[in-house]
Amino acid sequence: MVDLKRFFEPKTIAVIGASRNPSKVGHVIFKNVLDGNFKGEVIPINPNTHSILNHKAYDSILSVEMEIDLAIIAVPAKFVLGVVKQCKKKGLRNLVIISSGFSEIGETKLENELRKFLRESKIRAIGVNCLGLYDAYNKLDAMFIPRYRMRRPEPGAISFVCQSGAIGAAILDKATEEKHKFSKFISYGNATDIDESDLLEYLANDINTKVICLYLEGIKDGEKFYKTLKKISKIKPIIALKGGLTREGSQAALSHTGALAGDKETYLGIFRQAGVIWANGLEEMFNIASLVEKNVIFIGERAQIITNGGGYGIIAVDNIANSKNIKLAKLSPLSARKLRAAFPERVNIGNPLDLGGDATTERYKIALENCINDKNIDLILLIVLYQTPLITTDIVEIISEYHIESKKPIIAVSTGAEFTRTLSKALEEKGLATFSYPEDAIAVIDKLIWYQEKRKMI
Amino acid sequence: MVDLKRFFEPKTIAVIGASRNPSKVGHVIFKNVLDGNFKGEVIPINPNTHSILNHKAYDSILSVEMEIDLAIIAVPAKFVLGVVKQCKKKGLRNLVIISSGFSEIGETKLENELRKFLRESKIRAIGVNCLGLYDAYNKLDAMFIPRYRMRRPEPGAISFVCQSGAIGAAILDKATEEKHKFSKFISYGNATDIDESDLLEYLANDINTKVICLYLEGIKDGEKFYKTLKKISKIKPIIALKGGLTREGSQAALSHTGALAGDKETYLGIFRQAGVIWANGLEEMFNIASLVEKNVIFIGERAQIITNGGGYGIIAVDNIANSKNIKLAKLSPLSARKLRAAFPERVNIGNPLDLGGDATTERYKIALENCINDKNIDLILLIVLYQTPLITTDIVEIISEYHIESKKPIIAVSTGAEFTRTLSKALEEKGLATFSYPEDAIAVIDKLIWYQEKRKMI
Repeated sequence: MVDLKRFFEPKTIAVIGASRNPSKVGHVIFKNVLDGNFKGEVIPINPNTHSILNHKAYDSILSVEMEIDLAIIAVPAKFVLGVVKQCKKKGLRNLVIISSGFSEIGETKLENELRKFLRESKIRAIGVNCLGLYDAYNKLDAMFIPRYRMRRPEPGAISFVCQSGAIGAAILDKATEEKHKFSKFISYGNATDIDESDLLEYLANDINTKVICLYLEGIKDGEKFYKTLKKISKIKPIIALKGGLTREGSQAALSHTGALAGDKETYLGIFRQAGVIWANGLEEMFNIASLVEKNVIFIGERAQIITNGGGYGIIAVDNIANSKNIKLAKLSPLSARKLRAAFPERVNIGNPLDLGGDATTERYKIALENCINDKNIDLILLIVLYQTPLITTDIVEIISEYHIESKKPIIAVSTGAEFTRTLSKALEEKGLATFSYPEDAIAVIDKLIWYQEKRKMI
Repeated sequence: MVDLKRFFEPKTIAVIGASRNPSKVGHVIFKNVLDGNFKGEVIPINPNTHSILNHKAYDSILSVEMEIDLAIIAVPAKFVLGVVKQCKKKGLRNLVIISSGFSEIGETKLENELRKFLRESKIRAIGVNCLGLYDAYNKLDAMFIPRYRMRRPEPGAISFVCQSGAIGAAILDKATEEKHKFSKFISYGNATDIDESDLLEYLANDINTKVICLYLEGIKDGEKFYKTLKKISKIKPIIALKGGLTREGSQAALSHTGALAGDKETYLGIFRQAGVIWANGLEEMFNIASLVEKNVIFIGERAQIITNGGGYGIIAVDNIANSKNIKLAKLSPLSARKLRAAFPERVNIGNPLDLGGDATTERYKIALENCINDKNIDLILLIVLYQTPLITTDIVEIISEYHIESKKPIIAVSTGAEFTRTLSKALEEKGLATFSYPEDAIAVIDKLIWYQEKRKMI
């Protein structure tokens, strides 16, 4: 078992390379720890000044008297080993090394030396060449991105492990705005010591983490990685996105985090066998995570589409027909009869169940009532285009009542500007998963059904 | 030549079936024409009332004395033919028939009768079973969607022809929020008389329309359609999305707009041969249109990636390597030398040109300067993750200066929340095309390069 607890729940932190200059990484990260309302002690280390942001600065970690749980190192590459040696003297066991300038620019020897020293000294390190880490529950903001440039997420169910730095920051920023909530974010860069497998293993046991998102460029120990994935997939879902899948992309990955990328089929095969969900892009990764956040559990593969937009019904049918793990439900004769009796003749009773541009909230209620009780239906893709005039806004309460009462997942799709967004947001707040486009919803349902089936067999 | 001028530039409109009841289609559409600031005269027709929204109501179109250019019909299906006959008597030649209840619910005979009468009387009609139309330049809002539920676009370059109704409304709403600007929107429903080919032909000659988006479910006259597409693709780009591509989807389309859908390969083949851009989804359709809106003209296929997020560089390389029409540029020896001399060693001089998480605005300036002047480069994919601390906001001015001075397209990619969006918006306002994710940008570039090449050969 990898114990990384002190990385995420330290009581005392030293920022080595903290600076008075706001454009320095060491300044930004020190300031973020302070502004993030970290509950413990933070100490800046810098030999050239006495005080940084009203905190007394020390010339070296060795001058600090109190015990330090975690050091964050942001000094030029050539000084890193020296600083790490001082940390060892001080008795430190946990380091985050932000500094770049190692194997990713060909300085493999420098990195190997560092790794050797870390291993011999039994010091665990995240980095080098990384952005840092973030823990929403423990209010630990140790990333070098200024807070005004990037939102910080609320505490929640997703943990995001990202080999790349800036990409992680951009995605975290965007995902936060889209109301995703996070437990931990870790940018691990070159994985000099702690690698993706170590982090996954730790997150598998983190009670705050319900789903793990993983962006990686390459791995060093394939066997360890595969075993870890397989073990953890049984416990909680891992959604992976791999950069560097083409020959050209692999070359780019090599010079970014010094990672050997490996070929696409190998990775796809590994992920599939290990029960890892494969994301087709960054947006999709968080779309999948959001269903897990919302505790969506599929009880089967037969989907019924309810819609007031005929075109969306057709697009949804096309996408379900092309999906691997979803089937179109067939209404039972009983509910077909009931629906036929309840609706005007021009409503076609089938799949999609197209309630028409003149659909009322009442029609949606009847449709939901019957589909929820229909044993031929396992899940409902509920398309509501709020633009049409007869839909009243209390539809939100009706949908959410069915959502609460029933075990059948209801996935909502609505496209539009403010008016629509207000209603979709209301549904989200009541615990429903909502999407803007049917194709996105279906892609995500497809992958999550696959995972929930696969999980039983791993 | 199809002359539909009076549909979009009428001086007088009658709304037959206008109503005092706000939940009736006839009320909504009459109100929208008024609230949209239509410059001409609008007359409500309803035999059961004397006044609607302070406008004198007439019991029949035949009681109206002035000449009417366009009638919008929103009465139950069974009354439509009678009303159309009155319109003929009144000398009307242009109708928009909103009413549903025809072939889409199996009432093919009723629709055929109507069509026969329209053709014999040389009356042109949009509909039946449609949402209406919108002209941003002429301030004509004849759609049955309440204005508070759906945004109306500013006048601009896109025209959107949509067989489906509610889908059209939802998309128009969303696209408007994303700052797309429109010339015309037409929902044409069952295409009883005027079909997609007629509308395309009219839009080909509309000086306000620079690009046509087309959502269709099925066509009735394949040969006419193909010839029209081929003719118009030479003049302006058509971006098409087809609903009902699977067997299941085709069946759904049949009961939605009474359209025979046809198989996927047939449509793909027709579109490809005719030079029509095939959209992979609704979002992509408007992403492509947005590049045309912004006058992006590709001079070649060799793309150089500039980034401060290594991971995004890798994802971009993967996507370009997998694209059909984009190639990775190779920096000329001269610019490679210049860049090498200007940048720290850890910046890898290649494609992607990864300026690093510590990239400054100055580094971007140097990179842009060299890439713009490099004869081996045809277009620049400029990834800027504004989260990293050393990027200053004046980068927006620098990018837009290069954009204005150079003929090489610069396509910008940035992911993030408010801070990022503010800067992306600033770039958009200066005429640049911006995207949130590299994969979306590349998909769109790929398709537009294809079109610009294909256009020469049609």
